[in-house]
Parts: sequence; structure tokens; C-alpha cells
Amino acid sequence: MITKAEEADGPAINHIAASIDLFSPEEVKCVAELWREFTQKGPEASGYSFLILKEDGVVKGFACFGPRSLTQSTFDLYWIAVDPKAKRNGVGRALMEQVEKEVAGVGGRLLIAETSGQEKYAPTRAFYEGIGYCREATVRDFYAPGDDLVIYTHPLL
Amino acid sequence: MITKAEEADGPAINHIAASIDLFSPEEVKCVAELWREFTQKGPEASGYSFLILKEDGVVKGFACFGPRSLTQSTFDLYWIAVDPKAKRNGVGRALMEQVEKEVAGVGGRLLIAETSGQEKYAPTRAFYEGIGYCREATVRDFYAPGDDLVIYTHPLL
Repeated sequence: MITKAEEADGPAINHIAASIDLFSPEEVKCVAELWREFTQKGPEASGYSFLILKEDGVVKGFACFGPRSLTQSTFDLYWIAVDPKAKRNGVGRALMEQVEKEVAGVGGRLLIAETSGQEKYAPTRAFYEGIGYCREATVRDFYAPGDDLVIYTHPLL
Repeated sequence: MITKAEEADGPAINHIAASIDLFSPEEVKCVAELWREFTQKGPEASGYSFLILKEDGVVKGFACFGPRSLTQSTFDLYWIAVDPKAKRNGVGRALMEQVEKEVAGVGGRLLIAETSGQEKYAPTRAFYEGIGYCREATVRDFYAPGDDLVIYTHPLL
């Protein structure tokens, strides 16, 4: 079941972020900061919305998204993460479908997902490509030397 | 003369932003918000640095830049604006050179400048291309339908 995240889901969200091998300590900290902003200010003032997927009452994954400032109805997918023990069960795909519905429901027009071009992110890129996202652009050496930014886009209308 | 901006330069900076026809009201407001963050928190905590170019004591242009989170030494040029009455005097070019020096001086590796693909931004793109920036990537319809994001990059090392 996918629902909007509530305050009590914070520990599970942060725990999942910390359990993702690909996430650096800075990235885990960034998830925690966005979560704090979201719980303190709410989705509108913070600009962040969180969805969670629960199975038998246990959070198996989450997604965080929000509107991109200075654009007309473009939204960023900031984070998506699935409990490593729950992989290959369609959790990520189900979360993305709900993110798309939520974003389209508030008039969102374009969803942007950014990831790394590193070899270890090949499964992440395969995930976006598998759900039909367009590999729209690459910024070489963006994250670090040899670590490109890859921008995926998905039109919603 | 190019210097770091001080609190007293705020009105001139906001005045120049408001005088740029290309800037939307939201963009002028964004400049003001970044300026407020910068003056309240300082460059490190806010993540924003401002440089100004003065001629005869009058601010003719400004630039705002800062480190991009979750990257290794990549910096964003957030804003550059030149008093329309001072155009074609090399103010923009001089500001960019100083931004590059400042960023390189704190270990910056890559400078990113984002702009629009719209026809009315052709002079802005020509400016970046004229100073040797690489037109690295395009995200179609990013700002609005028909209004692409164009990403320029410039390596600093």
C-alpha cells in the first residue's frame, strides 16, 4: 500500500536510506534534511513530498519529489529508495507510478530524475529506462571527475 | 573594480535585477531571496557568494555563485546581470573572469551556467559561447513547453 508519509515514518525512511550501499553519507544526510524540512514545514512550504510503500505495516521503500523552482510545472524526483531486502518485488516501479499520479494530479507536466553515469549506477539507469524514462541529457564530470550527471525526463501530460 | 558585495550593495543589485527585461518577476524575487540568505547567513552557511563590478562607485553588474551540493567541487553560477545601460563594455566578461578565479581559488573544478533555449536568450547563450563555455546538455521543455534548459559547463583546473 502506498500512502503519503507521516511523521512516524521518519525512522524507517532514514533507515532505508542508510541501508542503500550506493548512497554516500552526504546523500543519507540529505534525505534526513529533506525529511526534517518536510515534517517541520509541510509539503507546500518545504517543497518536498514523501510517499511510502508499506507491506504488512512495514515500510519497504519511499520516494521524495517536489516542484522545481522557476519552472512551469516541472517536478524533480529527489530520492527513491527501496529496502535492499525487498528488491525485485516491483516496489520501486509502484512508487514511481504513484509519484507520477501525484505530480500529474497537481498539474505537473514533466518529471525529472537525476542520477550518476557511474558503472555502479547501471541498475538505477536500467530502472528508469525500464519504466520508459527518456535519457535526456548528460553533464560530464558533474558529480566528480569521471562521474557524470545523467538526466532522465518523463512527460506527464 | 570587482569586489565581494557588501550589505550596502543590496539595493543596487536588486535594482539591476529588476531592470533586466529577460528576468521574470519570479526570477527578480529569486535574486532578492538569495541576497537575503547571503546577507543573513554569510557565504558559507548560505552557499551563495556575490561579486559586484563598480565604475566610479556605481554598481554596473553582479554575479552570484556557490557550490552545488552532493558534488565534488562543482559550482553553479546562479545569476549574472549587467545594468542594461552598461552593456557591451565587457562588464559581464570581467565578472565571469573573477567568478572563475574565486571558484578556482576555493578548489572549484567545474562551473555550471544554466540558461534558456528560447530565442530571446540567444544573446545570453552567445555570451557564454563567446567566453569559451561548452554547451554541454539540453533538457527539452524544462522551464515550460517549448522553453528548454541549456547547460553550459566550464572546467577550471
